[in-house]
Amino acid sequence: MPDAADLTARLIRCPSVTPEEGGALVLLQEVLEEAGFDCHRVDRNGTPNLFARWGAKGARAIGFNGHTDVVPPGDPASWTHPPFSGHWDADDVIWGRGATDMKSGVAAFVCAAVDFVRQTPPDGAVILTITGDEEGPSRDGTIALLDWMAANDERMEACIVGEPSNPEVMGEMMKIGRRGSATYTITAKGRQGHAAYPHKALNPLHALTRYLADLTAEPLDQGTDHFDPSGLQITTIDCGNPASNVIPEKAVAVVNIRFNDLHTGAGLLDRLRDRAAAVQEQTGVTLSVEAQISGEAFLTAPGPFVDMVRGVVQQETNRQPVLSTSGGTSDARFVKDHCPVVEFGLVGAHMHQVDERVPAQQVRQLQVIYQRILERFFA
Amino acid sequence: MPDAADLTARLIRCPSVTPEEGGALVLLQEVLEEAGFDCHRVDRNGTPNLFARWGAKGARAIGFNGHTDVVPPGDPASWTHPPFSGHWDADDVIWGRGATDMKSGVAAFVCAAVDFVRQTPPDGAVILTITGDEEGPSRDGTIALLDWMAANDERMEACIVGEPSNPEVMGEMMKIGRRGSATYTITAKGRQGHAAYPHKALNPLHALTRYLADLTAEPLDQGTDHFDPSGLQITTIDCGNPASNVIPEKAVAVVNIRFNDLHTGAGLLDRLRDRAAAVQEQTGVTLSVEAQISGEAFLTAPGPFVDMVRGVVQQETNRQPVLSTSGGTSDARFVKDHCPVVEFGLVGAHMHQVDERVPAQQVRQLQVIYQRILERFFA
Repeated sequence: MPDAADLTARLIRCPSVTPEEGGALVLLQEVLEEAGFDCHRVDRNGTPNLFARWGAKGARAIGFNGHTDVVPPGDPASWTHPPFSGHWDADDVIWGRGATDMKSGVAAFVCAAVDFVRQTPPDGAVILTITGDEEGPSRDGTIALLDWMAANDERMEACIVGEPSNPEVMGEMMKIGRRGSATYTITAKGRQGHAAYPHKALNPLHALTRYLADLTAEPLDQGTDHFDPSGLQITTIDCGNPASNVIPEKAVAVVNIRFNDLHTGAGLLDRLRDRAAAVQEQTGVTLSVEAQISGEAFLTAPGPFVDMVRGVVQQETNRQPVLSTSGGTSDARFVKDHCPVVEFGLVGAHMHQVDERVPAQQVRQLQVIYQRILERFFA
Repeated sequence: MPDAADLTARLIRCPSVTPEEGGALVLLQEVLEEAGFDCHRVDRNGTPNLFARWGAKGARAIGFNGHTDVVPPGDPASWTHPPFSGHWDADDVIWGRGATDMKSGVAAFVCAAVDFVRQTPPDGAVILTITGDEEGPSRDGTIALLDWMAANDERMEACIVGEPSNPEVMGEMMKIGRRGSATYTITAKGRQGHAAYPHKALNPLHALTRYLADLTAEPLDQGTDHFDPSGLQITTIDCGNPASNVIPEKAVAVVNIRFNDLHTGAGLLDRLRDRAAAVQEQTGVTLSVEAQISGEAFLTAPGPFVDMVRGVVQQETNRQPVLSTSGGTSDARFVKDHCPVVEFGLVGAHMHQVDERVPAQQVRQLQVIYQRILERFFA
């Protein structure tokens, strides 16, 4: 009987900051092959990915999707326990980067699938698609797995993405769609010069701060029926000028926008460029904006599969989960082109933060929920 | 008869990038001792400095101040002639780092002083204070020379700093003071988090851009009788967050202020901190401000010494120099605590740039001006 909490701790000890595999997929492949899963590494352009199927190819299949890569831990000294320690404390809490996002979710569906096929082998197949790049560019992660599946006639009838879906407590929320996400890089170019002679120079940072302060001054919208308001975050500004008596030539800012169905990635690019042109006209500083669109907003309409998952969650947690589209992007945005997809996982508190951690009991509860979903699917 | 143009070329060949002595002060000491100057190396904490006096200690003395260190040349391949070649071309132009800032100025007052004491030995003293660190931290340069002079009862009645003072042509400008200069480092600290869940994080960049956009929205003042308006320049903003889905914890901005006699470095710090406190109250982001004050604004009030120098410049150049306080800082900010100080030197074009160079004729003209100043002082 594999234990998802134990597997979570072992996965945390694999330093799999995107794009490093860190031993995480190798570990999972061992566990799955021992349980009779047919495993294939589907690496593409250096991104590690793992496909695993129990049961016959072409049989009616349910799928799970998740990722083992994690965001950087920041300064390890800020952590109570080292970020890759997988420290298991006296309160039965497991610490480390990926504890909630989402080595625990992967551990839960891997252990649930192993128990399920051993205890009640179904007349069908269970497919697991696990990528090593969900936190990075995501160009060769779940997309590569889905491309490979299409080329090899592998099909899922429905899929569950195991990302943390609950804001505070288990069972309160599942996700049936996502806001879109796009990243915009703004490059401000002026003219270098001496700080004492600003009339001979053109300070790109003055134009850039004015532009960004304006962008963040007002919300993009107030939200729609199924969606939260869109949100804009400046994620970095960098200039790298070491000399305090020099006006720099160039600076770069990155803005990330999570947008609802009122917007598209391209429409937002137009909007950012229009405002850049206005500031450029006022200041003379060239402001260019480039977009990297991670995904457009989408919705999986409620139906039998959504109802079944919702029923299991309600039975196991005594809560009726809200059908939400809130939060960040996930690889559900790719899976939705393959089959109906819902997202249910752990509580997202601490994700991407210092001292990310998870109670072992929660991971085990999720393992049970996933196993019940597998049982109902084939019932 | 020493030639200031020739000495300039020889000094350029000494690679005296701050804090390297590079042979420059050694060369000057040889020239000055041969002419009967009493020389002392006044090195402090590794910074090389040269004090030289002709005439009796305690006699009525005029002084000159300058520096032999230079800023780095950048990529030597970008130069038409190597930066430490002292190349003398067919158009009688001398090339190299320090050609205008300010090996030429030092060469001019050294040669002028040597000629003067040989041709018309005065009833008094001529003091030269030459440092090897004006371009760097300046903590052990001219300050060390002045400290040593105070400890050894050496006094100047008035002093000329030989920094380039003319923007375009010889004789158009001399400086009778300087704006102050201070650098303020603003550290914004929020709370890290996922870009899709901004309500769980606190974005330091939103607070910082608002703060900076506000700081640069309006001029600090409109200038005063003897001073230009104060100027504020953001010189860098750095966050270094590589992940576009992460709201960073911290960002740092640097602001440089050149201020007139309406302000002090400490007063501006109070002002920046007051505004920081206001943004902190609005946003929750901690904004701390630290100051590094390079020099306060100062003015050498017009009077007999200023008039005398101005008269010589007008006679030799046929231009009446503007009495200015514009531009960057110089070591005049230290000398002014010792005695009245004015700055007159070469044309500042090319300083700190690639292909820094100077016409030999200009250096010789400056040598003559300095010699006439010495003659008038003792007339």
